[in-house]
Amino acid sequence: MSFILHSNLHSKSHVLDLELCSVLLEDNRYFPWIFLVPRKNNIKKIIDLNSFDQQHLFLELELAQKVMWNIFQPDQLNVAAIGNKTPQLHVHIIARYQNDPAWPNTVWEFPGKIDYSPLEKEKVIKSLRASFSENSF
Amino acid sequence: MSFILHSNLHSKSHVLDLELCSVLLEDNRYFPWIFLVPRKNNIKKIIDLNSFDQQHLFLELELAQKVMWNIFQPDQLNVAAIGNKTPQLHVHIIARYQNDPAWPNTVWEFPGKIDYSPLEKEKVIKSLRASFSENSF
Repeated sequence: MSFILHSNLHSKSHVLDLELCSVLLEDNRYFPWIFLVPRKNNIKKIIDLNSFDQQHLFLELELAQKVMWNIFQPDQLNVAAIGNKTPQLHVHIIARYQNDPAWPNTVWEFPGKIDYSPLEKEKVIKSLRASFSENSF
Repeated sequence: MSFILHSNLHSKSHVLDLELCSVLLEDNRYFPWIFLVPRKNNIKKIIDLNSFDQQHLFLELELAQKVMWNIFQPDQLNVAAIGNKTPQLHVHIIARYQNDPAWPNTVWEFPGKIDYSPLEKEKVIKSLRASFSENSF
């Protein structure tokens, strides 16, 4: 059966597909924020993946963290698999700054959201694609 | 130089040491909640570890998630490296239930905290130690 993305993730912008995961962008100017979503059905949490796919996920997560660190040069990276509201494994990678509006709290404690302008979003997606391609193994 | 645990983590209870990480328990009856802390100095985020240690961390995280899933039989596991307030890498593994007081939000959005009784805490630590020992690779 081909992979079906959970409907809660439909609003995110598709950046690119890695071998295992799709990379999606959260449309929120406050925080550079992507998701890695393994294209496997019926996976709710990391340990639902078999060991091979977990290894693969972790390699793609390492790559994604390096990409986010290099492009956005933040003060910290938050990496999290929560999945209480969207029970399909998706790992958040969020670039955080000491002067972002939620710091030092988590982004989940901060209700604000501002969409990117179409031009800004295009630019962010373009940088992400270029950096993933340059750094991929 | 021997490893120095960040002072913000001193209040957590020591459960056991794996090869790379120390396992600590959050003293909060609302949520079964542990931390994996790699015993390496000057590591703020996952990608500050070298590739070998990252692989090792991920294997220990897999083990820790299985232990938490087996002991507490929750509805979901939340796994997160945040580190905005405590800039020493520590990965949260939290067992979540559909009837816990924060569900479906993150634990960071929930201000409540009730300490374990000494007897309860001893029991939780004992189960964790037993399960880590049984399942370790």
